[in-house]
Amino acid sequence: METVFGKHSVKAVFLARPQDIKKVWLLASQKENLQEFADLAHAHQLTPEYLPWPKFLKASQLTQAEKHQGVCILARPREELIENDLEQLADARLVLALDTISNPQNLASIIRTAAFFKIDAILTIKNRNAAVTPEVTRIAVGGAEFVKIFHITNLARSLKTLKKMGFWVYGMDEAGEKTMAETEFDDKTVLVIGAEGQGLRQNTRDKLDFMVRIAGGREGLESLNAAIATSIALYELNRK
Amino acid sequence: METVFGKHSVKAVFLARPQDIKKVWLLASQKENLQEFADLAHAHQLTPEYLPWPKFLKASQLTQAEKHQGVCILARPREELIENDLEQLADARLVLALDTISNPQNLASIIRTAAFFKIDAILTIKNRNAAVTPEVTRIAVGGAEFVKIFHITNLARSLKTLKKMGFWVYGMDEAGEKTMAETEFDDKTVLVIGAEGQGLRQNTRDKLDFMVRIAGGREGLESLNAAIATSIALYELNRK
Repeated sequence: METVFGKHSVKAVFLARPQDIKKVWLLASQKENLQEFADLAHAHQLTPEYLPWPKFLKASQLTQAEKHQGVCILARPREELIENDLEQLADARLVLALDTISNPQNLASIIRTAAFFKIDAILTIKNRNAAVTPEVTRIAVGGAEFVKIFHITNLARSLKTLKKMGFWVYGMDEAGEKTMAETEFDDKTVLVIGAEGQGLRQNTRDKLDFMVRIAGGREGLESLNAAIATSIALYELNRK
Repeated sequence: METVFGKHSVKAVFLARPQDIKKVWLLASQKENLQEFADLAHAHQLTPEYLPWPKFLKASQLTQAEKHQGVCILARPREELIENDLEQLADARLVLALDTISNPQNLASIIRTAAFFKIDAILTIKNRNAAVTPEVTRIAVGGAEFVKIFHITNLARSLKTLKKMGFWVYGMDEAGEKTMAETEFDDKTVLVIGAEGQGLRQNTRDKLDFMVRIAGGREGLESLNAAIATSIALYELNRK
């Protein structure tokens, strides 16, 4: 079991997988502001427990510093998807693969944006990218509930698998020949994002069908923040 | 005088206003990695001073925690632009106005993105937005040198001034009728961004010619992070 906290994150679990929720804890002193969550609980045959401050912290195992907004649930964790599960993407259209995103805040922003633009899945490489911690999930304001997140070990091999499934693989890199706006993307697209500063690794590049870039930049400022660049790319994919 | 530190930020000052630079301090132990800055200094008739660690910290008045990358300059501060200076925008085409961006990291990302897309100016309301501190400037990796930043006191009045100068004013809001992609923007455009969660204030709305939104969103995840949304909007403006 795991705890999920914060209004957006909890609401997202109610929307995405209410059957996984076992307990609903609400801070008694916030009762009036949390009616929505009491209603959601009742709608799913759950009884919300109103707890005073120390009991709320104890039940939820949260610290005072965490931005729980007075709402916390106990739920079965999301199934951890791995490389062997990629076949679940047979009907998917847009997949985002992250080569190296080490900043947790950036990862959270990307997950939120991916959910906003209805991207089907995110591939993240174990040990190279920031982990999808409860804090990242919270900053993503529930986004992690709406996008399948695959924790893969080998990106090149995963891209090969997806190509066999009919996907075309586009890598984003400052050196890309065409801009994203100029590019016609396939109905089944994987977009691969490299590390800020370093770009895509050679063994990732070897698996690309196309290399694309975002139009812009100037001398002295050639690149965007990784989360911003990824978000703009997802916007452009969604725009088409 | 003020200090500017970090490779990108210092390089940006050399590109944007080298005449303002008075001193160039380089960390002696990093000499080999900083040849570019020695060359830049010499090209502008400045003599770089190679300092050992404690002297470098003392001269630059930096703390150990700041990410200076061994390079620091002393320079005249950028001229602080205020509301009365808006007439400088007579030939400008794209202006970004920030209603409320309280997170310094978001502000820095927005400045960087605005520079990347060659936005002419940013209007930021004093006391409502995060301040453009040296740390914000550093996270913006020099972006603040390439965009005119106006510190205004009254946004509604500033928008009125810009409208008289021939600008059309577009507000970004989830309630916008048309998406940004569907909208034809005028050659002289001001884009106004509201606060995350709260949107645009009524007295700002009263000054808008059009209200636009970013296509996307889903139940449970209706909005983007403020810096992401702003960056996507600037991308779309640049795309047209």
